[in-house]
Amino acid sequence: MNSTAHVQQLNPNAIALCSLGRWIASRHWVPATGGNFSIRQGDNMALVTASGKDKGELSPQDLLPVSWQGAQLTSPLGTPSAETALHAQLYQLDPAIKVVLHTHSVSATVFSRIITAPQHAFIGYEMQKAISGINSHEQALPLTIFENTQDISALAQQVQQRWYQQPLHFGLLVRGHGLYVWGHSLEQAKRHLEGWEFLINCELEYLKLTGKP
Amino acid sequence: MNSTAHVQQLNPNAIALCSLGRWIASRHWVPATGGNFSIRQGDNMALVTASGKDKGELSPQDLLPVSWQGAQLTSPLGTPSAETALHAQLYQLDPAIKVVLHTHSVSATVFSRIITAPQHAFIGYEMQKAISGINSHEQALPLTIFENTQDISALAQQVQQRWYQQPLHFGLLVRGHGLYVWGHSLEQAKRHLEGWEFLINCELEYLKLTGKP
Amino acid sequence: MNSTAHVQQLNPNAIALCSLGRWIASRHWVPATGGNFSIRQGDNMALVTASGKDKGELSPQDLLPVSWQGAQLTSPLGTPSAETALHAQLYQLDPAIKVVLHTHSVSATVFSRIITAPQHAFIGYEMQKAISGINSHEQALPLTIFENTQDISALAQQVQQRWYQQPLHFGLLVRGHGLYVWGHSLEQAKRHLEGWEFLINCELEYLKLTGKP
Amino acid sequence: MNSTAHVQQLNPNAIALCSLGRWIASRHWVPATGGNFSIRQGDNMALVTASGKDKGELSPQDLLPVSWQGAQLTSPLGTPSAETALHAQLYQLDPAIKVVLHTHSVSATVFSRIITAPQHAFIGYEMQKAISGINSHEQALPLTIFENTQDISALAQQVQQRWYQQPLHFGLLVRGHGLYVWGHSLEQAKRHLEGWEFLINCELEYLKLTGKP
Repeated sequence: MNSTAHVQQLNPNAIALCSLGRWIASRHWVPATGGNFSIRQGDNMALVTASGKDKGELSPQDLLPVSWQGAQLTSPLGTPSAETALHAQLYQLDPAIKVVLHTHSVSATVFSRIITAPQHAFIGYEMQKAISGINSHEQALPLTIFENTQDISALAQQVQQRWYQQPLHFGLLVRGHGLYVWGHSLEQAKRHLEGWEFLINCELEYLKLTGKP
Repeated sequence: MNSTAHVQQLNPNAIALCSLGRWIASRHWVPATGGNFSIRQGDNMALVTASGKDKGELSPQDLLPVSWQGAQLTSPLGTPSAETALHAQLYQLDPAIKVVLHTHSVSATVFSRIITAPQHAFIGYEMQKAISGINSHEQALPLTIFENTQDISALAQQVQQRWYQQPLHFGLLVRGHGLYVWGHSLEQAKRHLEGWEFLINCELEYLKLTGKP
Repeated sequence: MNSTAHVQQLNPNAIALCSLGRWIASRHWVPATGGNFSIRQGDNMALVTASGKDKGELSPQDLLPVSWQGAQLTSPLGTPSAETALHAQLYQLDPAIKVVLHTHSVSATVFSRIITAPQHAFIGYEMQKAISGINSHEQALPLTIFENTQDISALAQQVQQRWYQQPLHFGLLVRGHGLYVWGHSLEQAKRHLEGWEFLINCELEYLKLTGKP
Repeated sequence: MNSTAHVQQLNPNAIALCSLGRWIASRHWVPATGGNFSIRQGDNMALVTASGKDKGELSPQDLLPVSWQGAQLTSPLGTPSAETALHAQLYQLDPAIKVVLHTHSVSATVFSRIITAPQHAFIGYEMQKAISGINSHEQALPLTIFENTQDISALAQQVQQRWYQQPLHFGLLVRGHGLYVWGHSLEQAKRHLEGWEFLINCELEYLKLTGKP
């Protein structure tokens, strides 16, 4: 372990993110080493999960420091997750974002394929209030679904363009792929993750029972 | 920690409610800091969960003392859950109520939207006997569904009016929102929670398979 | 604690049954203090779970000694589960039965209502071999469904009559109520429980997808 | 314990496989003592789980050394799992295979019966990349389904024939029976297990919602 990695061992943010990772894995939302997490470490740096690790068995040295300068990423200590460009994009779009979580639940994956439109509006669920800025179940809460691509830079650019058109409400789906959520703190990001997963889950069950969204 | 909060640390009721909260969270019935719990502390006082806390990570100081005088609530130590008025209403309707639990399961949420009537009768389930006062699966057990509103005082008034018309059987649904259960002890409230969740779950699965309630 | 109860504390069968109870509760198969378990303690005696206990939190003194003489039950230390008569019936029908487990899963409950016939045959599942005496997925494995009743003695008599007509294959359903399984050892009873639950679960999912059994 | 078994107690591969078994059991993928696991111990030997053991409660001495010479198996220390012949077949087909896992999930069992064709192609799921050799969700990933038989040698022969026709992609289904996965390491085998289970699960949910694959 080099000295940079050693310092990270004691980083409370890194420890907290690993702990959240264990909880997320216990929900089966990051199977097969899928998913990735990051936590901001300053204006243009974040710790990002290393590629190929089981996200329920992370230790602080599995979080790699990544710096960005626009679309240019630098990661001196190892290979961060392939989707790091999207994390960096989000951190640049909003300086208040502290944590980004990307998960692969069965529900979110299936929902993103059942809904073929580019967006789905949730309405009538009290749980909508779990998403910051939503104060009533009567306020429609849209979730945007991006088409999946292996070109993460292109996806990051689409997210950037979309960001300035309409609020993303701390979450987005990538079709057939999974959910991204973020927050201004670890606690908020976790709440957004649980909130969006709950809403998606409810809507899928409702669809099974009624045959219509 | 002030001295009142310090005393609460040692309150066995508070400790037991926090422990029940961990169990409820392990069932995924209070996601995204949702839900709220309370335990009576005398004729016109209860401990109520603080707003915004993860209900699976409560410690006794997260339970706030709340007093009531009719619809007037007093909470000197912090902000209790937004739905405290409904807890206080239930404690005033029946002096035997010791514990109130409000949860947000996917099943209860979806069920409350699938059933568009103001009430649903369960019949033919042995589990109906988990609800106090029910002695046979042949005795129809109705569950009342109230419309959701952000005006909790109005909801509390509707519950009060409904209370004197027909028994609520230790539980009620709020549409698109979740389940409230209560009991004359912590153990009974837990049994009512599990019983109602089981019945709702069974009925939803039955509906999926048959297309009719 | 009296001396009889004290001896029971050290009874390895009692300890093992409590441990199995915790595992069964972790599967959510005995919600709301439902279900009951017993373990044979000789020719005409068994330890049976006390009524109203959470079956995931049993300790040996929650198991009550019950003796039988035909349909006559004797239980000097407390009130055993209401369904004790059915346990005693099974122990009398087959001296090799060592353990009886009665559970209330959502799947078994719903399945017992979806299948309106008095019996359902499973075929084509490798898991059928989990039930003692079944050696191939090609051998049809029938599961009998009895109508629910609050008269447990009457139910016990029906089980007795049915026993001599056709094998029950270490399990039976009571409609809208739950599953009974048994075995010649604790391990075998657990295997029969898991096996029957798996088969019922598969068949329900299959029905959801195909609309036919 | 004889000296061979004693040595096995300290075998890190054996310890790791038992640990993976506990994780697999926690997912409910090896109910009722079903399923079996093995880990290669050299060119023509592997440790294979003993028959009839609960796969969530394995200790190293429950793994039996099995040698092969073509279809001829030798197991001096006890009775390995009935399906050992298929494990041995896979180890002989590819010297790089280090671990073979056979599981019985409800999803895989039901999926193998819903899909009546001999093969099903997954497409459009990012999770396809969990399977080694797949680099894009746009690359169709076929899963082969073999008919179930109690003649494991015959099944092993069919797998051998199929192996040379088209890649199996580190997994195969046996109809009404379960899933086999393998990998070049314990970690990879686990990833293939989670990946295939996820894909099967998604496709089943999609089928429930759309009525078509």
